[in-house]
Amino acid sequence: MGEDGRDGRFPTLSDLEAAAAQKLPPSAWAYVQGGAGEERTLRANREAFQRMTLQPRAFEGRGEIDLRVRLLGRSVSAPFFIAPMAYQGTIHPEGESGVARAAAEAGILAVFSTLSTDPIETIGGASGDGPRWFQLYHQPEDVMDRQLIQRAERSGCTAVVLTADTPMLGVRDRQARGGFAIDASVPVGNGPGIVPPARGPVRVGETYRPAADTAPTWETLDRVRECTRLPIVVKGILGAEEARRCVDYGASAILVSNHGGRQLDGAPASLEVLPSIIDAVGTRAEVYLDGGVRRASDILVALALGAKAVGVGRPVLWALAVGGRAGVAEYLALLRDELIVAMALTGRRSVAEVDRSILAVPRS
Amino acid sequence: MGEDGRDGRFPTLSDLEAAAAQKLPPSAWAYVQGGAGEERTLRANREAFQRMTLQPRAFEGRGEIDLRVRLLGRSVSAPFFIAPMAYQGTIHPEGESGVARAAAEAGILAVFSTLSTDPIETIGGASGDGPRWFQLYHQPEDVMDRQLIQRAERSGCTAVVLTADTPMLGVRDRQARGGFAIDASVPVGNGPGIVPPARGPVRVGETYRPAADTAPTWETLDRVRECTRLPIVVKGILGAEEARRCVDYGASAILVSNHGGRQLDGAPASLEVLPSIIDAVGTRAEVYLDGGVRRASDILVALALGAKAVGVGRPVLWALAVGGRAGVAEYLALLRDELIVAMALTGRRSVAEVDRSILAVPRS
Amino acid sequence: MGEDGRDGRFPTLSDLEAAAAQKLPPSAWAYVQGGAGEERTLRANREAFQRMTLQPRAFEGRGEIDLRVRLLGRSVSAPFFIAPMAYQGTIHPEGESGVARAAAEAGILAVFSTLSTDPIETIGGASGDGPRWFQLYHQPEDVMDRQLIQRAERSGCTAVVLTADTPMLGVRDRQARGGFAIDASVPVGNGPGIVPPARGPVRVGETYRPAADTAPTWETLDRVRECTRLPIVVKGILGAEEARRCVDYGASAILVSNHGGRQLDGAPASLEVLPSIIDAVGTRAEVYLDGGVRRASDILVALALGAKAVGVGRPVLWALAVGGRAGVAEYLALLRDELIVAMALTGRRSVAEVDRSILAVPRS
Amino acid sequence: MGEDGRDGRFPTLSDLEAAAAQKLPPSAWAYVQGGAGEERTLRANREAFQRMTLQPRAFEGRGEIDLRVRLLGRSVSAPFFIAPMAYQGTIHPEGESGVARAAAEAGILAVFSTLSTDPIETIGGASGDGPRWFQLYHQPEDVMDRQLIQRAERSGCTAVVLTADTPMLGVRDRQARGGFAIDASVPVGNGPGIVPPARGPVRVGETYRPAADTAPTWETLDRVRECTRLPIVVKGILGAEEARRCVDYGASAILVSNHGGRQLDGAPASLEVLPSIIDAVGTRAEVYLDGGVRRASDILVALALGAKAVGVGRPVLWALAVGGRAGVAEYLALLRDELIVAMALTGRRSVAEVDRSILAVPRS
Repeated sequence: MGEDGRDGRFPTLSDLEAAAAQKLPPSAWAYVQGGAGEERTLRANREAFQRMTLQPRAFEGRGEIDLRVRLLGRSVSAPFFIAPMAYQGTIHPEGESGVARAAAEAGILAVFSTLSTDPIETIGGASGDGPRWFQLYHQPEDVMDRQLIQRAERSGCTAVVLTADTPMLGVRDRQARGGFAIDASVPVGNGPGIVPPARGPVRVGETYRPAADTAPTWETLDRVRECTRLPIVVKGILGAEEARRCVDYGASAILVSNHGGRQLDGAPASLEVLPSIIDAVGTRAEVYLDGGVRRASDILVALALGAKAVGVGRPVLWALAVGGRAGVAEYLALLRDELIVAMALTGRRSVAEVDRSILAVPRS
Repeated sequence: MGEDGRDGRFPTLSDLEAAAAQKLPPSAWAYVQGGAGEERTLRANREAFQRMTLQPRAFEGRGEIDLRVRLLGRSVSAPFFIAPMAYQGTIHPEGESGVARAAAEAGILAVFSTLSTDPIETIGGASGDGPRWFQLYHQPEDVMDRQLIQRAERSGCTAVVLTADTPMLGVRDRQARGGFAIDASVPVGNGPGIVPPARGPVRVGETYRPAADTAPTWETLDRVRECTRLPIVVKGILGAEEARRCVDYGASAILVSNHGGRQLDGAPASLEVLPSIIDAVGTRAEVYLDGGVRRASDILVALALGAKAVGVGRPVLWALAVGGRAGVAEYLALLRDELIVAMALTGRRSVAEVDRSILAVPRS
Repeated sequence: MGEDGRDGRFPTLSDLEAAAAQKLPPSAWAYVQGGAGEERTLRANREAFQRMTLQPRAFEGRGEIDLRVRLLGRSVSAPFFIAPMAYQGTIHPEGESGVARAAAEAGILAVFSTLSTDPIETIGGASGDGPRWFQLYHQPEDVMDRQLIQRAERSGCTAVVLTADTPMLGVRDRQARGGFAIDASVPVGNGPGIVPPARGPVRVGETYRPAADTAPTWETLDRVRECTRLPIVVKGILGAEEARRCVDYGASAILVSNHGGRQLDGAPASLEVLPSIIDAVGTRAEVYLDGGVRRASDILVALALGAKAVGVGRPVLWALAVGGRAGVAEYLALLRDELIVAMALTGRRSVAEVDRSILAVPRS
Repeated sequence: MGEDGRDGRFPTLSDLEAAAAQKLPPSAWAYVQGGAGEERTLRANREAFQRMTLQPRAFEGRGEIDLRVRLLGRSVSAPFFIAPMAYQGTIHPEGESGVARAAAEAGILAVFSTLSTDPIETIGGASGDGPRWFQLYHQPEDVMDRQLIQRAERSGCTAVVLTADTPMLGVRDRQARGGFAIDASVPVGNGPGIVPPARGPVRVGETYRPAADTAPTWETLDRVRECTRLPIVVKGILGAEEARRCVDYGASAILVSNHGGRQLDGAPASLEVLPSIIDAVGTRAEVYLDGGVRRASDILVALALGAKAVGVGRPVLWALAVGGRAGVAEYLALLRDELIVAMALTGRRSVAEVDRSILAVPRS
């Protein structure tokens, strides 16, 4: 294995997805890859980045490059983070702990899900002093939310990421076809009582309601903020007014996201709505984005439009599938190196220098 | 079979078309799928929906959801209906009666064709007290129109849907290639004297005319309105002026439609012209749409642009092919559930709350 | 065979191309299908039509329909004609004479090439009293032009179509790859001395010139006009100023054409430039178009934009390949019938009623 | 072999790429074809040309055509040149010397790379009195730059092309996957001490820097200009301000280039930025372009937008792979002939006549 954690499991970022497809059984692959419905939003996330162009700068690529940024007051080694994703133990036996180790070694922020395969305490042990946050799916009883947050806090998580876009699970056709069910049959490390968002509706006379009271509301945000001193990040925001209201409710950051295209098929691409949310929030909160981020150029585009950092999702699962902790480490190193090259080619030496002038005219 | 009528014939809406393709012989499949000419309008119908985006709402998905709407004064369980389609007995032995039973059980409006395989009286028996309308192809003798309408009325149909766009059949290449002919060889349940729209032109000296006097005119609309007290829906309108004129002639509703892309190849997508027709008609008549509706998101888009309800066509034939009555029931349940999920994700609790604010900026 | 000349060689217009591909040897197929270079203009011709949409009219399709138009003073049975194409004997033994018979029987105008396999006198005999024009490739000696025109005139041609866009042959990669050469090895019915346009350049010191003096000039137009009393059509015009100048030089009509995408790859689609040429020429000359016309809807689009008639090219060769004279007759009947249906669906009873109001908003 | 150097290795320009793909081993093919990352910029280069349209001129194609232009004061036989490309000996044993011979015989300018397989002196011998320039990759020691320039000068190169866009190599996924490494393992004819641009970053505490001090700066441009009396061309400019600054620093010409899509994936197409650079530079320097040029029509488009000449890259390697010197000669002859035909069809007799009026409206 090379000095930077690479050992050739996949030669380039372009090869990672195919390598993972060969490793995973079909049902897990359907879980990883699938979006909602016809997967229009899933594709839109990617296409939104592919329409953007970056302006290189000649003769300006010499000198040292510093990728560090501060997220909610803590320094991390690069302006990208690992987005929260459930059930990582179904992808590789090392699961969230493997991801945690790779992220911590690289100084990269990782966000872990309520529905992690490993308990949050185990993940905390694996993370050492690496930066980590906890993602919360609202539970039927408020006390369960509070207990989860307290466990996360004690395990070293320094922020709570409350998911706002999942009153019910989206209609995930590829998962259903592939035979992967998000329900009680999948073990959840944080305890057998932890429930995922509701699947499908239940009839109540002439109307319908979710199968469980897991739908988060603005009151949920209030209560979560009240039960912890950790900063709150609201995940799953696509509208400017909503983003502003989250900040009014005390959120410290907004994660612009359409849940990787897994919730409402037809929702806009994360990148498409980012500028309006940046405008609405101004300097009152940090704004992040996930959805469709694959390459260093995507990171620069999102930063240029005002994101403070971007989350990477499926590629981390691909890397985990291919090589567990070592696979994730290899992936993080490749993405970091590509980002350094991209900054050299655009003549930037620090993240603070990445502003709108790095964008060339979008391709029509 | 599950409590909601599903038994796994097709796991998701995305799988329905392929499942049907395996069930039907090539000629029936060509009939179901084919459009006119090069099928540009057929594709355009679908693409028009795929360009639209919906704006999710965070933290607003809790609470009961009511899908009911009133169509021409009668309550139905959801804002979608089964569009009129001929010859359903060639798709499955249960034919229109199977469709009628599934629709009635679900409280969904179904529209039955002049060219149904089952007689309208049989369909009426299968429908019980389910909501149903009768679609009329103008017949060579006005008395035949009147008799059909009276039979439909006695069979429990509560509106007459007069088709306006079929002076001749469109040039349906896929059907012709597949060997499916719309002519006297296909049995029509409503009687051997009932004729379909004319096929192709006949030479008369230096000019041409349709093979039969089935081409409807504005006078046809007048006569149909005069011979019944049922409300009249005009089907096959794509122009604003025409829609207004239909209302002037006494129509209670307009069904914006290009006949599923089967008449004039090159005609605009139904969705493309909907806004101008809504503007023209205002509150003087209800406006519906069919053509390209496949998913719950499509229904929300059409409602947001002002449609009171939308018709689903080919998917019902797919479901009928796959499982007869039970297949259609399964399809209707899946579509209804997807619509509830979509309303939860966009924070709507009733159809009345679906307005233009649910639309995000169309994707370029 | 049916009463209208159809015998089922190809069930629909959509099937014709594939049927021809199976009949012709690869080199002839390459000749028929190929365009210049990367075939961008070839594709653009078709795509320009596919972007256009037509507005149907409800309740207006009853009544007799008259397709006749007058072209340069003579009535023809429909507003489409057979564009000039060389070497038809390489497609089918019946060659131009077969085409001439089918056209004459249908009352359709046919234009025959200088490079016809059959001599113009033979074609004239086959045409009977059918409408026909003669296309002229400028010959190295003016006297040869004059003799050809006189022979055409004596053979019953009522106009001369002078090709203006072929100082050299375009770079026809598909033909070259397929092994079809336009040179002295292909017999020309009008005599061994008749030469095609020059292939490729010849070096002259530091510069280059065509291999033969076949490049037409404005003076060529002058001389052609002077040597006959037949009206002159200039073929291969894509610019408004040029069109106006042709009329100033005495042309009676302009044929907007990019030579079926065979000359300059990258040239605009014929349809794209049609409106500006119509504007430039006004009522001083008739304007026709060829390039990409496949369906009745294309004909309506070109007429709506101001063309007096449109030429069909490759489809005639496909039909000739499939069935000789009978194939062409079948094709002409199918296209005519489709045009009648399209006029019924758009509520037009004569070609004079086809104006811009038939166009719906172009699809973006 | 024909009089113009063609012997049928590839019948047309459209066949060249496929012919080369069959000749080269996979790793060399990956080197030739690959771009950076997902190859968006690679594709964009080509697509930018394909969106442009050219306006033919009827009746204006007679007469002799002169392709000659003067580049930095020296006459060359056509307004295209061979762009600098490294390691040509890995493509064919004749390597740069073969290319040099073919170019010289055709009177075409060729630019040779610092990383040529043959030493520049050998190339000079092969070039005879053919026009040639030397491309410089900045070396770790300024003295090395000076020595290379002096050797080039003595070998008959009449300009220095300084590459400005390569502080590090781009992330070339296809090359990496194909197993082609740009490093010390590939022999460089100009001496074992010559180094390519740095690959990837090296960690320095919390920051990163290139692996070698090969990143060129504005100071590099200053020093290069000072150490020679040859004119300086700066290669790899995509911004208007940068282009102006290069001229302020004494550059005689700008080569608009994104390094064939091999550096920053997401950079704009060369053609997209050409007009703004032409505007910025005015008549103070010559402007050239490379990237995506394949056909004569592309050359006319770039000239019309103000380029003085255009570079062809990959096609030369394809031709070299297919037939060494003879293959390149064949390619150059085909491209020249196609350009003459295109000028005849657009009615131009010299390069000076190619202005913006040759462009038709871009296709939407």
